[in-house]
Amino acid sequence: MEGKTPSESKATLTELVFPNYTNALNNLMGGQLLLWMDVASAITASRHAETVCVTAAVNNVSFNKPIGMGDVVTIEAKVSCVFNTSLEVYIDVYVEKKFKKGKFKTNEAIYSFVAVDDAGNTVKVPPLLPETDEELERQKGAKQRKELSLIKAGRLNPKDAIELKSMFE
Amino acid sequence: MEGKTPSESKATLTELVFPNYTNALNNLMGGQLLLWMDVASAITASRHAETVCVTAAVNNVSFNKPIGMGDVVTIEAKVSCVFNTSLEVYIDVYVEKKFKKGKFKTNEAIYSFVAVDDAGNTVKVPPLLPETDEELERQKGAKQRKELSLIKAGRLNPKDAIELKSMFE
Amino acid sequence: MEGKTPSESKATLTELVFPNYTNALNNLMGGQLLLWMDVASAITASRHAETVCVTAAVNNVSFNKPIGMGDVVTIEAKVSCVFNTSLEVYIDVYVEKKFKKGKFKTNEAIYSFVAVDDAGNTVKVPPLLPETDEELERQKGAKQRKELSLIKAGRLNPKDAIELKSMFE
Amino acid sequence: MEGKTPSESKATLTELVFPNYTNALNNLMGGQLLLWMDVASAITASRHAETVCVTAAVNNVSFNKPIGMGDVVTIEAKVSCVFNTSLEVYIDVYVEKKFKKGKFKTNEAIYSFVAVDDAGNTVKVPPLLPETDEELERQKGAKQRKELSLIKAGRLNPKDAIELKSMFE
Amino acid sequence: MEGKTPSESKATLTELVFPNYTNALNNLMGGQLLLWMDVASAITASRHAETVCVTAAVNNVSFNKPIGMGDVVTIEAKVSCVFNTSLEVYIDVYVEKKFKKGKFKTNEAIYSFVAVDDAGNTVKVPPLLPETDEELERQKGAKQRKELSLIKAGRLNPKDAIELKSMFE
Amino acid sequence: MEGKTPSESKATLTELVFPNYTNALNNLMGGQLLLWMDVASAITASRHAETVCVTAAVNNVSFNKPIGMGDVVTIEAKVSCVFNTSLEVYIDVYVEKKFKKGKFKTNEAIYSFVAVDDAGNTVKVPPLLPETDEELERQKGAKQRKELSLIKAGRLNPKDAIELKSMFE
Repeated sequence: MEGKTPSESKATLTELVFPNYTNALNNLMGGQLLLWMDVASAITASRHAETVCVTAAVNNVSFNKPIGMGDVVTIEAKVSCVFNTSLEVYIDVYVEKKFKKGKFKTNEAIYSFVAVDDAGNTVKVPPLLPETDEELERQKGAKQRKELSLIKAGRLNPKDAIELKSMFE
Repeated sequence: MEGKTPSESKATLTELVFPNYTNALNNLMGGQLLLWMDVASAITASRHAETVCVTAAVNNVSFNKPIGMGDVVTIEAKVSCVFNTSLEVYIDVYVEKKFKKGKFKTNEAIYSFVAVDDAGNTVKVPPLLPETDEELERQKGAKQRKELSLIKAGRLNPKDAIELKSMFE
Repeated sequence: MEGKTPSESKATLTELVFPNYTNALNNLMGGQLLLWMDVASAITASRHAETVCVTAAVNNVSFNKPIGMGDVVTIEAKVSCVFNTSLEVYIDVYVEKKFKKGKFKTNEAIYSFVAVDDAGNTVKVPPLLPETDEELERQKGAKQRKELSLIKAGRLNPKDAIELKSMFE
Repeated sequence: MEGKTPSESKATLTELVFPNYTNALNNLMGGQLLLWMDVASAITASRHAETVCVTAAVNNVSFNKPIGMGDVVTIEAKVSCVFNTSLEVYIDVYVEKKFKKGKFKTNEAIYSFVAVDDAGNTVKVPPLLPETDEELERQKGAKQRKELSLIKAGRLNPKDAIELKSMFE
Repeated sequence: MEGKTPSESKATLTELVFPNYTNALNNLMGGQLLLWMDVASAITASRHAETVCVTAAVNNVSFNKPIGMGDVVTIEAKVSCVFNTSLEVYIDVYVEKKFKKGKFKTNEAIYSFVAVDDAGNTVKVPPLLPETDEELERQKGAKQRKELSLIKAGRLNPKDAIELKSMFE
Repeated sequence: MEGKTPSESKATLTELVFPNYTNALNNLMGGQLLLWMDVASAITASRHAETVCVTAAVNNVSFNKPIGMGDVVTIEAKVSCVFNTSLEVYIDVYVEKKFKKGKFKTNEAIYSFVAVDDAGNTVKVPPLLPETDEELERQKGAKQRKELSLIKAGRLNPKDAIELKSMFE
């Protein structure tokens, strides 16, 4: 099974914040952004795996700055780590303020997917070939989170959590 | 400022999975569930804080079992931890299969909120008074995640991560 | 066929009134509440009947007080009366004003359903075992409305409308 | 204040039943039709009253025949009765089966509205001038329902329910 | 194959402009009107062709005057020209300003459809029998646009564009 | 006023075709694509003009190939021509078939916008500096359509339609 780079399956979504997406402060609802990010990352995951990918977990979503009505939101999703039959997508969200030049980053999120066939059985995912420093760093972070999650579930001995332990050395 | 128990602000949502919420496998879209959980937890957070609460972060969302068209979804949201001007809501999702008796748990998620006034300035949140063992355990888990997030952001020395280090002792 | 109490199939929905649900006065649209009540009562009916229940009639919906943007709406649906292959669901709607403590009742509604199998043929519904005074009174009201509706349709002689005539005695 | 005929404010809506409006049997959801009828009758009420009209009550909605995906739905709304600051709209729903000629009636409903100004205060509604036999009969039915509702609310002595008692004579 | 007049398949849609259909200036979004016009003209095309009609092209949509929140929009769609297996629908949009009497025209649009069977193969469309001067003029305009489009696609010699050339004579 | 190239304001949207966007043949509804293209082109127009841009006209939308459920749609919008206070956006739509590699073009469309300030008054738009052959050709086509539209409206003598007449020479 041939590997693929993160940029081969990268997906970009651009959305305009209309009144019907806003909350009581006239800012974009968190839930709406979560829905857009799910679509963007599902497209990315399916492009990499070339099969149906269903959302398995969501982590590390941060909403740092409010996004206002009329702002333009750009969502970029790239595969950050591949496990056996699952994969992780890292999402960066950028905003251009209404009719102002220049865009800045407002959000990050990590969505995990399981690759399945039409009957819903898991299928193997092609390896990931990270190219840039950021891609390598995000792959490392994915492995740490995986370990922490396995420890909490009682399925990994903390002593064997190689990537996680390296943080304390 | 008087404390409140988690059950005082608990919110319950019940939804029927109609065709327009489903993906290509006729199962509930992850993004749609993320949106419902955002609404449920925002209601809970606002009830506890008695002010606007905006989504600040989403973590530990797991999608363990597919939810099918026609299934009934029950979403229960309870405050699990209060920090200074922010609070964490723990969400449990239960499903009743189409026209079958009995419900079982399919998902968990953790949403964090910041309490703000109408001008968007942060305001102090009342303390949380957990009552049950589960409520105490979830409060502890919230503190561990907070520490991990502060370490990654370079704002906490791993040596001072009291709750997190206790896992390795 | 074993009977069931109304509380066994009771459904609760909690919704936050976002801007996209409001009318020109910034209050919740009547039609949106009708849609939510249809979902809540369909869940309740299906839980009682353990089969598909399709909406057959809507009556006695009253909108007494406006519900504003940012208010929290709680919809409670309970089976109030069972006929042969149909059943009636009584809905109570409560509102918490935006960030104020305490909830009060704003609406009531009665939705009727027909229980059907997957081919759309009607199926028999289990008997209802009302427990409280309110449940007994609502069952009686349901029978009166049924009689009035049969008279108007020319399918019942007013003299035989036992429950309805009792009002004038 | 000058009277108006029902046909002066009549509204017609035509909708195509797309997949996202259907339930588990691939038929139009009751709640969706309730929402469309609310829009149609609100337009009719506002045209007659020439001010905002908010939904006050819904009654006598019957769903007699299933409406399938791809069918064309025509909703006709006409004012049937005017009270002091409120008015009743009678709705007839017709369906053309997918790509078949000829349309037939599937539903009826009665929506009541209160006429208000921009501050939400009730305002007087122009009188109704019914022209056809059907329009006169529906006006009479409206008065009977009004009386039954006032009796149930303890605000009318059954002896004074002129229109309702006439049914038993 | 028997011909039909444009009025036999005419469709009328009436919509109220709710807040969730508006843009940053509180006016109806162009895209929302395009969606409503697609539904109206698809109904008209399917009524004429008595089979599925899929949107093939959109032209000559003009948005001359803003439509505000609370305004009532009436969309009238009539078949304007029939080619072999395709047909053109001409749409007129009228607006009643919020609670003001009288309606005026704000938009026009031309949508083209291809008639297909359930397998997606094109099928022949019944001839059109225009009756009024406007219907005849719109049929002529449709033929001119067809010619221009064929020339641009290199599938018609400009010398053979009979209807289009007549404009310059 | 400084000019800008088309690529400076280019917008890209990526959408996954979920069941609720499809018609009776399980293909993407034309109206839904029209709505997405309106959002994409409005973002592009506003980026170029740095002010609100409202949809003024839609032309030359062609739907050549059906887009199926589960396909990935990429919408690219670029400014093609600038007039005094208005501008034209050319849209190309590409599709990747469900889980198949490679994308191909399915649609084109031309949307026109008027640039306005917050009060709705028209404002001048910066000049366009086309760079590629395609950008130059599309600018020329825009001028021809403008001339045809002015002739039909009786506001231009066909003899003065420089760009349009050049087609017949």
